[in-house]
Amino acid sequence: MNGPPPPAIAVHGGAGALDDSGTSGLGPEAPREEGVGRAAAAAWEVLRGGGSALDAVVLAASILEDDPTFNAGTGATLTASGDVELDASLMYGPTLSAGAVACVKDVKNPILLARAVLERSGHLLLVGEGASGFAREMGIPAWPNGRLVIPQQRARFDAARGVKPAPVGGGTIGAVARDRAGHVAAATSTGGTFLKRPGRVGDSPVIGAGTYADDLLAAVSATGHGEPIIRITLARLVADLVGAGRSAPAAASEGIRILGERVGGQGGVIVVGPSGEPGFAYNTPAMARAWSDTAGTIRTAL
Amino acid sequence: MNGPPPPAIAVHGGAGALDDSGTSGLGPEAPREEGVGRAAAAAWEVLRGGGSALDAVVLAASILEDDPTFNAGTGATLTASGDVELDASLMYGPTLSAGAVACVKDVKNPILLARAVLERSGHLLLVGEGASGFAREMGIPAWPNGRLVIPQQRARFDAARGVKPAPVGGGTIGAVARDRAGHVAAATSTGGTFLKRPGRVGDSPVIGAGTYADDLLAAVSATGHGEPIIRITLARLVADLVGAGRSAPAAASEGIRILGERVGGQGGVIVVGPSGEPGFAYNTPAMARAWSDTAGTIRTAL
Repeated sequence: MNGPPPPAIAVHGGAGALDDSGTSGLGPEAPREEGVGRAAAAAWEVLRGGGSALDAVVLAASILEDDPTFNAGTGATLTASGDVELDASLMYGPTLSAGAVACVKDVKNPILLARAVLERSGHLLLVGEGASGFAREMGIPAWPNGRLVIPQQRARFDAARGVKPAPVGGGTIGAVARDRAGHVAAATSTGGTFLKRPGRVGDSPVIGAGTYADDLLAAVSATGHGEPIIRITLARLVADLVGAGRSAPAAASEGIRILGERVGGQGGVIVVGPSGEPGFAYNTPAMARAWSDTAGTIRTAL
Repeated sequence: MNGPPPPAIAVHGGAGALDDSGTSGLGPEAPREEGVGRAAAAAWEVLRGGGSALDAVVLAASILEDDPTFNAGTGATLTASGDVELDASLMYGPTLSAGAVACVKDVKNPILLARAVLERSGHLLLVGEGASGFAREMGIPAWPNGRLVIPQQRARFDAARGVKPAPVGGGTIGAVARDRAGHVAAATSTGGTFLKRPGRVGDSPVIGAGTYADDLLAAVSATGHGEPIIRITLARLVADLVGAGRSAPAAASEGIRILGERVGGQGGVIVVGPSGEPGFAYNTPAMARAWSDTAGTIRTAL
């Protein structure tokens, strides 16, 4: 039997610690696992109904952006200036089309803006006020920066004033999917590192680093300390490993091994290939994740 | 004889047309070929004296940024708003360290700011006003945007008002080098596409797309229409081809073939591997370039 591969979804909610130091900074772990499970279940319904992998990953990412448990969209960590600055990207495997935004301050769902960049801008990456201007042209309303800031993140910021934090990423969210047509897609969204310098951009909006999708290879979303991830183009590297014949789990493990060994990076990655089961790997203590098993049941883990 | 490979330098001044439509928009071709030759000769002196590949590519890039013939630094093309917005990146092969800036309006030499990001920021990519703020902290003076605009570019902008231009890149500059120690480095700098939307970022500051350098693979700098270059992570792709055993010229040609065939992209690339001669390829009518031959003589071509 050589039928089409079944659809597949995998979602992450950031690689980091098990306590509040590496992810959203908000404490309890259960909401993270529940959150990724909810997002994966919603995306799975899209795929089960014959929807596209691109629609599935955008839905999962937007749900996680709206969930204050995660460091993306509402609930993002604050910069050194006390603002929220958001990065996101997505890529679609059959066309290699991609869209991304970085350093955006006034959009509720950066992944939806990234999709508008992909579909309607003629460009691939828009940053800062130029990205906001494009959002207004697309009818995406201005969202006050203060509405992205939740009280727990403000309190965390206030508590950290004057204390130099460890440059740890995490709490980033991402999704990868394969649809019934065999196409793959990937999406990633983040608030970046806690107390980052304004204007700092990590791997999440960088195609090839935080996000990559190619039907000939795989769909990949990364999370963790962004700079080392960019230096080894982690998402592209893991996709290439699938293209070279590795299973998604093996490619994920190999990519994270290289991340640690070559550039001392900490992070995680999720992968869906053109066939087979999703793959996960991380070299942090935990990575919130959810995926569809071969029976279509949503599984979750930390 | 298995001595260390000789040093090597290669420089490009943008892939585009032979007339003014694809590069700086300034007309005569001779200054382009002379300009890349001057930059390559200066960088070659660094390498000949035992200097590092990183110093060599930064020197070449800064010379080309200051040369109004090229679309980088002084002489950059204007955005749809009539401003200059500059992008640049560099990467050093022995450490995989990298620095990049995007959408910067008030710095004379973005490649020097990218180097400061690499060496002193703890980050990899800074954009917009955050990048400018970092420049001031580093003692890099504010440079009025108007001083980056040369009269010929202003006239070209005025002539194009209301005319929708073709989305062609080019005139971007870049350099790749291998030093006596066998280390490689790459640098790329650009003003982006003519009449680009403010906030649009192309491949030049994206590590893996416009720039990549890894001593185990090669050093690569790309030029051309940025979005397709990002979609195939061209610089990383070409470096991987060298890592897989291709010569630099063969890897360059293969990368440009893939750029055209998979995503319909137009552009060019320069490559220096851990041994052997530099490689060049482009699928545009011309690419201004200069390089050192095996005797250490600087050659130029369009």
